[in-house]
Amino acid sequence: MKLGIYGYGNLGKGVECAVKYHSDATLVGVFTRRPPDTVKTVSGVPVYHADRISDFKDEIDVLILCGGSATDLPKMTPAMAKNFNVVDSFDTHAKIPEHFDAVDRAARENGHTALISAGWDPGLFSILRAYSSAVLPSGKDYTFWGRGVSQGHSDAIRRIDGVVDARQYTVPVEAAINAVRRGDCPEFTTREKHKRECYVVAAEGADRARIEKEIKEMPNYFADYDTSVSFITAEELKANHAGLPHGGSVIRSGATGFEGENNHTIEFSLKLDSNPEFTASVLVAYARAVHRMNMRGEIGCKTVLDVAPADICEMSGEELRKHLL
Amino acid sequence: MKLGIYGYGNLGKGVECAVKYHSDATLVGVFTRRPPDTVKTVSGVPVYHADRISDFKDEIDVLILCGGSATDLPKMTPAMAKNFNVVDSFDTHAKIPEHFDAVDRAARENGHTALISAGWDPGLFSILRAYSSAVLPSGKDYTFWGRGVSQGHSDAIRRIDGVVDARQYTVPVEAAINAVRRGDCPEFTTREKHKRECYVVAAEGADRARIEKEIKEMPNYFADYDTSVSFITAEELKANHAGLPHGGSVIRSGATGFEGENNHTIEFSLKLDSNPEFTASVLVAYARAVHRMNMRGEIGCKTVLDVAPADICEMSGEELRKHLL
Repeated sequence: MKLGIYGYGNLGKGVECAVKYHSDATLVGVFTRRPPDTVKTVSGVPVYHADRISDFKDEIDVLILCGGSATDLPKMTPAMAKNFNVVDSFDTHAKIPEHFDAVDRAARENGHTALISAGWDPGLFSILRAYSSAVLPSGKDYTFWGRGVSQGHSDAIRRIDGVVDARQYTVPVEAAINAVRRGDCPEFTTREKHKRECYVVAAEGADRARIEKEIKEMPNYFADYDTSVSFITAEELKANHAGLPHGGSVIRSGATGFEGENNHTIEFSLKLDSNPEFTASVLVAYARAVHRMNMRGEIGCKTVLDVAPADICEMSGEELRKHLL
Repeated sequence: MKLGIYGYGNLGKGVECAVKYHSDATLVGVFTRRPPDTVKTVSGVPVYHADRISDFKDEIDVLILCGGSATDLPKMTPAMAKNFNVVDSFDTHAKIPEHFDAVDRAARENGHTALISAGWDPGLFSILRAYSSAVLPSGKDYTFWGRGVSQGHSDAIRRIDGVVDARQYTVPVEAAINAVRRGDCPEFTTREKHKRECYVVAAEGADRARIEKEIKEMPNYFADYDTSVSFITAEELKANHAGLPHGGSVIRSGATGFEGENNHTIEFSLKLDSNPEFTASVLVAYARAVHRMNMRGEIGCKTVLDVAPADICEMSGEELRKHLL
């Protein structure tokens, strides 16, 4: 399959790197809104201005959209689905139904296949919520995120007056995870499930007490959590907090038996050195499914829940049954 | 969907119990090779002789086959696929391709849909091997089983002269799991991955040293493992080893990045109080998919790798996107 990358930030770079691990994929080019001669790709693949994308209508099997969910993808995915089969990583959970409808319309009218919200949450975590709830309908599932860097929360701290840079880690509360593993099926407040650790570089002479207060009281982002704030130097931030690790787990416990007498726990967890590179790896696997579905005439918008595992695998059905089932 | 249960041992009973957790499923009857009046069902659902199964051709949407993999299913599944949509839990990994072909032929010739090898391994573990290898193609996956009761190994001990009863637990080696979690991608011998714990009730006056030696030296079953043998009383066996717990984990670690500089670990684990009841729960969820696939005209033999997660869920696509994605 011939792939294109539309948008070249951390995620686009991740896709570029991921492609080399898939022997059935080749990269046609990277498309960017910046002047192409200012962008150097990791692999040397050609860079084109985003305005030229429609010239590649017949050369790209699947276009992987690497824009942000807040402002880029709501417009970008439906627009690109007119000319291409597309995959995106739209992750604003509350707006998925609306995004799905817009993309479905554009893809269907033009005979294309689109897949939205690939990645790990939404993505692999959604898949695990689906499997575990179908198999143990009497149970309850829990999703924990972290330990990992939340870019949205880091950005929110950076917008505070007197803050030079910041890194925020989302950390699941160990006691909550253990209660779920035991099969207690507890009800948690927001505070009981996750805590937030903030590493902040303050400007010289800035009022640290005021910064700390502003962080801890910030509604939605921090006020509902136990939040710790540590002031560090720019050098420390660079040395110890340069990466974008993340991860988390989906845990469901549920009962079986005529009286619900037996308990079962299903747990899925991810430990990721690089959030964008892992998300990119999921996007490339789903690009394969989108290509195959389109070849079979299955058009319109799909999500990871609509794709059979075999369709994201390079091996044939026969090989999968022999070696992996 | 209207379901039938064919075979009424631990697995068949598990299916009977699982059905009550699925609001879209009803049970038409249990079919057994024993005299029906000697079989009492847990829920009071009617019992029929297996010979009468073809009378129910038009009353059952999916027949769940609860025979054993060694001798029952290789004949039973192709035979039943002639008259019914079927699901089985065939778990002899090496013979899956051959079983698939036989079932596919029978199902296709008669316009039915069959799904083989549902359960947890093969089953959910296979699914996780597929997802994790598609997303991290550069890595390596490991499957650990246990701590749990292996019925085949327990039976093997029971066949030794002087043994009254026995229970064998398969136990994963913690050090091996930790090495995999660290991303070491080690090569293991059989002995390094699992050990075997045997609890044996010996006949009065039996030569325990000889029994222990026979167990530990038994080829295929025990010779390649570190095996411990404990002699206990029949009362202790009943009090402490009556259940059929099992579980295990699939772990894959793999690299991303242009130089493979970032590492990721995907881990899926199950902790099951009752192996047959959990397997039964998977069978019922896949019966739903088989019913839907048949209604859409998708006939022939399938495996869990061919089924999209949405197809085993009771919720509609719209509800899934809204609540679970």
